[in-house]
Amino acid sequence: MNRPQVVKPGSISGFPEWLPEVRMVELHWLDVIRQTFERYGFASVETPSVEALDTLQAKSETSQEVYTLRRLQADPDDASDARLGLHFDLTVPFARYVAAHLNDLVFPFKRYQIQRAWRGERPQEGRFREFTQCDIDVIGADQVPLHFDAELPRIVHETMTALDLPKWTLYVNNRKILQGFYQGLDIADPVAVIQAADKLDKIGPDGVRRILTDKIGLDQRQVGAVLNLAAIRGTGAQVVEEVLALGVKSELLTEGLDELAFVLESLSDLPEDIIVADLSIARGLDYYTGTVYEGKFDGWPTYPSICSGGRYENLVGSFVNRSLPGIGMSIGLTRIFAKMVGEGLIDTGRRCPTDILVIVPSDDRRADALATAAILRDRGFNTEVYHQADKLAKQLRYASRKCIPFVWLSPFDDDGGHEVKDMATGTQITSDPHTWQRP
Amino acid sequence: MNRPQVVKPGSISGFPEWLPEVRMVELHWLDVIRQTFERYGFASVETPSVEALDTLQAKSETSQEVYTLRRLQADPDDASDARLGLHFDLTVPFARYVAAHLNDLVFPFKRYQIQRAWRGERPQEGRFREFTQCDIDVIGADQVPLHFDAELPRIVHETMTALDLPKWTLYVNNRKILQGFYQGLDIADPVAVIQAADKLDKIGPDGVRRILTDKIGLDQRQVGAVLNLAAIRGTGAQVVEEVLALGVKSELLTEGLDELAFVLESLSDLPEDIIVADLSIARGLDYYTGTVYEGKFDGWPTYPSICSGGRYENLVGSFVNRSLPGIGMSIGLTRIFAKMVGEGLIDTGRRCPTDILVIVPSDDRRADALATAAILRDRGFNTEVYHQADKLAKQLRYASRKCIPFVWLSPFDDDGGHEVKDMATGTQITSDPHTWQRP
Repeated sequence: MNRPQVVKPGSISGFPEWLPEVRMVELHWLDVIRQTFERYGFASVETPSVEALDTLQAKSETSQEVYTLRRLQADPDDASDARLGLHFDLTVPFARYVAAHLNDLVFPFKRYQIQRAWRGERPQEGRFREFTQCDIDVIGADQVPLHFDAELPRIVHETMTALDLPKWTLYVNNRKILQGFYQGLDIADPVAVIQAADKLDKIGPDGVRRILTDKIGLDQRQVGAVLNLAAIRGTGAQVVEEVLALGVKSELLTEGLDELAFVLESLSDLPEDIIVADLSIARGLDYYTGTVYEGKFDGWPTYPSICSGGRYENLVGSFVNRSLPGIGMSIGLTRIFAKMVGEGLIDTGRRCPTDILVIVPSDDRRADALATAAILRDRGFNTEVYHQADKLAKQLRYASRKCIPFVWLSPFDDDGGHEVKDMATGTQITSDPHTWQRP
Repeated sequence: MNRPQVVKPGSISGFPEWLPEVRMVELHWLDVIRQTFERYGFASVETPSVEALDTLQAKSETSQEVYTLRRLQADPDDASDARLGLHFDLTVPFARYVAAHLNDLVFPFKRYQIQRAWRGERPQEGRFREFTQCDIDVIGADQVPLHFDAELPRIVHETMTALDLPKWTLYVNNRKILQGFYQGLDIADPVAVIQAADKLDKIGPDGVRRILTDKIGLDQRQVGAVLNLAAIRGTGAQVVEEVLALGVKSELLTEGLDELAFVLESLSDLPEDIIVADLSIARGLDYYTGTVYEGKFDGWPTYPSICSGGRYENLVGSFVNRSLPGIGMSIGLTRIFAKMVGEGLIDTGRRCPTDILVIVPSDDRRADALATAAILRDRGFNTEVYHQADKLAKQLRYASRKCIPFVWLSPFDDDGGHEVKDMATGTQITSDPHTWQRP
């Protein structure tokens, strides 16, 4: 196994780029992700990198991280360019896309979107200023069946498994449980409590207790119940029992618990400890209304979440006077891939896609080498012809340095036979370009 | 949750986006292009969308079209973001990439790069503000053999053929011919003449004559020779004869004619009239030093060029104290694809990648439908399970509207048999998910 050097992320901090052998692995990952998404019938959508600033600000929370555009030579008084910005995620552009093409889409509309996004935040481990997200969403005309709350994690699990990632866990919760539980506690502003509880990871129970008491004004009983709820975590139906045991009741809470139980039950065939109910998960974004997800590496608990998502009722409603519910998940490709590269867990092999290098024995045999290569290409082999009639040793060294697995030794005269050298084993066998098979 | 104001989801001029059925074709195109590039051993590289402004301005010609970035909430006095811009092509970022990773690359380095680029110019037919380019380049440590001047057009021709494009022509010239010819005419500033002659298309012979006479100060004999040279166009060796017949001589001219003849000869097996020598082609960019290419649709002569490129000696030299020669070609994917869409030449079929829709006969048979789908997916079929136990007619209508070719009718009870409906023919046959084959 070759351990790649960690490439300095370009010349600009937060904008990663990879050497060709690392990019080959990333490309393979992208193929795997796309194939898994398509296996479940999701259609590709791409949106422009650029949206009107009004669109990006329809959800205001991350607007301070938006990169706006300006033409270098623009008239300083001309503000038209300044109304454009790079998208900071794929959810907002997708909602805008659905709103723009409402009459041309068939619902429920299932799309995947694999694109870069940009955030002008300070680069740190796992946070980039340019990164690739892989999103799947189902958006419905009237309602989106709860089945999708289980299908999306299944697809993501299948993707992560195909990528052979280190053990990770998908933490699941339901915003209705939080909202319903807080309602049952007679809390006036459940959203403020959700946002406070969401900080549990960062500031701990005492920090959250202070916010709940001092800022939101909850009483001791309420604070205790909120923290007890957030402490519940488990893999099966006993989670529901534990919540019920806290003695809080509301219709919304019951609905949320039923939904969570359905999701856990539907995914019970997956390996144990992959899907974990965690009642502390809230997801900061205010548009989630039901199931929410957050995936983390088990081995790197402080590393930011590697996938996330949830159910929303009204995202497209920012753009048209109509509410279309949906559910989506997003895989943070750059975040995951960069971590794997950094940890030396990427097994780079070849430095180019070439299967076979065809040797050029002499300038006047070059035409033969080209003809051999054409035959091999027609048969589906990625084939390079060496660029000049160098000494054989030099041509072999090129193949070796580029990790090209096979070298085709063209005959030195019309009567000569073809030989193929297997660079891994060193064996060399007589062969015919029309019939050769990879050993 | 508060409902935000409705933001009109208009698309922004110059930033194209496609419906899913059109995107499926674009995705197929991207696969074909990538596969063809890899067939010749070119390795994928991606660079950040963003470069330092200094990098982008190393070649100054298009700098006025650069989009610079600024964080929305940036301190107005903090100019650090303003030193970043979106790349306007893939050549400059590639040169910067090679310079940055010089010691980690094996030369000649063959890379392809399929990425978006941005130009803040006024959108018009064939010109977009965000567009995807597909570039191949070979960059060498010492020299890049002339063979590549013929290989790159061959690869591009193979790509265009695989995309089944309307008839197009690749016009080829060599900057050494122009430079050498002008030297032979004792013209002091050949580059100025090259830039003037490059305008022939737009302003005609009289316009060029005026620039040559009034601005550059050529005499009648020189102007006549320049225009005579630019009028030469042809498919074979007679082009060289025609240039020689003009009676101008220089060493560089001879070299250029030899190179052009080599390229034409090497590509003589391609269909006639695909590769045409055109002595008026100059390519405005000042870094080209040898062969230059410009591809145009025969049927739309005023439409901008659909591919272009050429040989350069010193592009990386902008970034390191070393000169690495290279040769590259770029396919303007968005420009070509948008034209095909606009002309109604894109044959859209399916609206999603789903091969098979599995019907859900009733809620309690849903688990069986899921199991059937899992078997079909394992066998490589893209499979959707219908989202709820609607009436059969409604489920079939969904398949029909999404252009899903096959519908799997799960049995209504444990003893029932599976049937598959071919939506194109309407035929329905008994089948087994473990053995079914696409007819």
